[in-house]
Amino acid sequence: MTKRLLAELLGTFWLVFGGCGSAVFAAAFPDLGIGFLGVALAFGLTVLTMVYAVGGISGGHFNPAVSVGLTVAGRLPARDLVPYVVVQLIGAIIASTILYFIASGKADFTLANGFAANGYGEHSPGGYPLSSALLVEIVLTFIFVMVILGATSGHAPAGFAGIAIGLTLTLIHLIAIPVTNTSVNPARSTGPALFVGGWALQQLWLFWVAPIVGAIIAGVAHKSLFGDE
Amino acid sequence: MTKRLLAELLGTFWLVFGGCGSAVFAAAFPDLGIGFLGVALAFGLTVLTMVYAVGGISGGHFNPAVSVGLTVAGRLPARDLVPYVVVQLIGAIIASTILYFIASGKADFTLANGFAANGYGEHSPGGYPLSSALLVEIVLTFIFVMVILGATSGHAPAGFAGIAIGLTLTLIHLIAIPVTNTSVNPARSTGPALFVGGWALQQLWLFWVAPIVGAIIAGVAHKSLFGDE
Amino acid sequence: MTKRLLAELLGTFWLVFGGCGSAVFAAAFPDLGIGFLGVALAFGLTVLTMVYAVGGISGGHFNPAVSVGLTVAGRLPARDLVPYVVVQLIGAIIASTILYFIASGKADFTLANGFAANGYGEHSPGGYPLSSALLVEIVLTFIFVMVILGATSGHAPAGFAGIAIGLTLTLIHLIAIPVTNTSVNPARSTGPALFVGGWALQQLWLFWVAPIVGAIIAGVAHKSLFGDE
Amino acid sequence: MTKRLLAELLGTFWLVFGGCGSAVFAAAFPDLGIGFLGVALAFGLTVLTMVYAVGGISGGHFNPAVSVGLTVAGRLPARDLVPYVVVQLIGAIIASTILYFIASGKADFTLANGFAANGYGEHSPGGYPLSSALLVEIVLTFIFVMVILGATSGHAPAGFAGIAIGLTLTLIHLIAIPVTNTSVNPARSTGPALFVGGWALQQLWLFWVAPIVGAIIAGVAHKSLFGDE
Repeated sequence: MTKRLLAELLGTFWLVFGGCGSAVFAAAFPDLGIGFLGVALAFGLTVLTMVYAVGGISGGHFNPAVSVGLTVAGRLPARDLVPYVVVQLIGAIIASTILYFIASGKADFTLANGFAANGYGEHSPGGYPLSSALLVEIVLTFIFVMVILGATSGHAPAGFAGIAIGLTLTLIHLIAIPVTNTSVNPARSTGPALFVGGWALQQLWLFWVAPIVGAIIAGVAHKSLFGDE
Repeated sequence: MTKRLLAELLGTFWLVFGGCGSAVFAAAFPDLGIGFLGVALAFGLTVLTMVYAVGGISGGHFNPAVSVGLTVAGRLPARDLVPYVVVQLIGAIIASTILYFIASGKADFTLANGFAANGYGEHSPGGYPLSSALLVEIVLTFIFVMVILGATSGHAPAGFAGIAIGLTLTLIHLIAIPVTNTSVNPARSTGPALFVGGWALQQLWLFWVAPIVGAIIAGVAHKSLFGDE
Repeated sequence: MTKRLLAELLGTFWLVFGGCGSAVFAAAFPDLGIGFLGVALAFGLTVLTMVYAVGGISGGHFNPAVSVGLTVAGRLPARDLVPYVVVQLIGAIIASTILYFIASGKADFTLANGFAANGYGEHSPGGYPLSSALLVEIVLTFIFVMVILGATSGHAPAGFAGIAIGLTLTLIHLIAIPVTNTSVNPARSTGPALFVGGWALQQLWLFWVAPIVGAIIAGVAHKSLFGDE
Repeated sequence: MTKRLLAELLGTFWLVFGGCGSAVFAAAFPDLGIGFLGVALAFGLTVLTMVYAVGGISGGHFNPAVSVGLTVAGRLPARDLVPYVVVQLIGAIIASTILYFIASGKADFTLANGFAANGYGEHSPGGYPLSSALLVEIVLTFIFVMVILGATSGHAPAGFAGIAIGLTLTLIHLIAIPVTNTSVNPARSTGPALFVGGWALQQLWLFWVAPIVGAIIAGVAHKSLFGDE
């Protein structure tokens, strides 16, 4: 069990460090910056790479909503859920802390650009309201967990799940960065919010509620629709 | 059969939600937008991810033209063709509807930018005429179905078809977004056209005819040229 | 043999149609264009997708220099070399012809932007001289053929060769588009040159000589250095 | 042993030629340039492609820090470490030399833009100080070696390691190009520094120390945490 928790901690650390790090350092770099496309690729590759690195140990969730969805679908024992979520949060917070030290070394650093936190309304990158944010996060987490459950099921070719799951996260970011900066992962949202404080903490509830709702729907749906294949 | 139809519905939903969603929300975002390259990646990844998620259930067409091509090639029983096309259309329309709700939450939303509908002539992104649109959609759907038939045949390594097919769709978009906004998929074209109305509905015929013609040619060609390998 | 030649013709058609097509239509599209990065991805994906579609039939060369290199390395029977090169040229010319029809439908179309032809000196995108062009094309084709020979050898995991080979071609384009517009493939260079004429035909020799020299060095080197693994 | 050293030399040559070459030629090309995203992709693809081309021969390190980490983790015999590092350096220097010849053919070539060398402080692309550079290089090399050790261990699916490892390097570059131009590889840093001289040689120590420290931590950590899976 310790190994599995360490694997989840490491993977979630990498998800937040790599995804939020690329956004903080490189997204808006003058002329040569990687933009939303680069950030989308970065988030997806954190998961793709960690699924191959430690997915065989822990299952490779790196996301409390995913762990909830897999528990509902009967893939994760219920007694493992809380420890998984706790270490995922620890990994995310360590990542945000180290990112803060690296980023704040720069003379003109400021948290006012958001530090990659998620938001809606006036804190949505494109100015989308709470209703749009809620809907997009539910739908995208639903699909994310459906892909995870499908790609790791018996009728999918073995070994390719890491590619499918990681690139689904890239795709999710290609769609929704303008709406919410893209969460689908409460741990990923919590890390930066602790540093930004204020509005980011006030809006954090949505990035716990919506992903978990989407994941539960997926867990129920997959089990009842495709469960006995 | 119900499972297979649900899989096709889910996959086509994701194709339209992810592909058109990335175009509507993120393509032209100021400075950081993902551009045609990001949209091309998004469309391809919808198929790549869903082939691994549910391709083992339904075959993973997510596209009426592909279903026609596979029927011609003898890979899909003819009696399954109409149900497949119907659920693909339903999936596409649900996706466009949810996209509309999310996008219209933004104060300055307008359908006048096209809502990712396909078009030619004055509605071609680059101003290409009907003849160019017809030719490019036929050629690209022909190749798309040739890759699908080849990558799922016995002489291709097992498991990799999802990568090859998904990335073919990315490549198709890298080529043809400036010409027609890229269809090669009548369901993908129908979803947004129902919301845009007017010109989009008037031009919709081309995005049914050309992909289906290309797919039929591929189905016949593959069977006669490579069929007995 | 007919099947193998048809597979090479189809694959080379797709390489030129997809790679040059993305360059002609989408690379420099205002604001949303795919740039050199998108073109690099397009060229690589043509090969990746066709290796899975028809590589099991013909070996998946789609390139006269590759066919020469594999002949030198003892992987292609010498009597097959000329037929392979001939059908590769036919595929490339058909692709350029269809591209010309699609592209010339646009009112402001002109061949003066190069139609994706390769060049050096004043026709190098970045103004690199003949000596730089010669060196970069030799080195890159050498590496390309080394990867092909290595990734299809017995000590590489089966099935992954298409990914490795296709993405090598993407990488080659990421490096050398500014120098020569990137060839490493005489058939790919010949197709557009026939339409552009003039300087493109005068400089075409380099894009036959340099890739073939690089490929021969790779064929000899791989056989002597790694041949008996 | 000779074959293994030749494989390491070739792979490190390709890593520096492809990664630094894309940066020198294509990153900042007017309008169509590939930016940090393209350079990140290029570095990752050098490793992905060479793992499939020659990884089966030498293990596919192409990086002195990786070789140190694998020695610490017990995966590389200690007596092989020095020969591996020597040929890696030779490959990197040959690559920089050929790049110099190609690049300097252009009339307005100058080494003043850095020739893709790594740096911190005033030579960090984004102006990050020594402390940020040290921290980011240690963390990223730690993760890089953790992924390498995990993806090549018994609980990861066979064959996918090259994809996971290569794309980890892409991800590392998506994060850290603004901070240090990204090293995580002393050989990659040494090649360009020999041509740039001055500040690049004075700062080179960091790009030996930090990657090796990160790699040693990973080697120890993986062995003690996940070693007996």
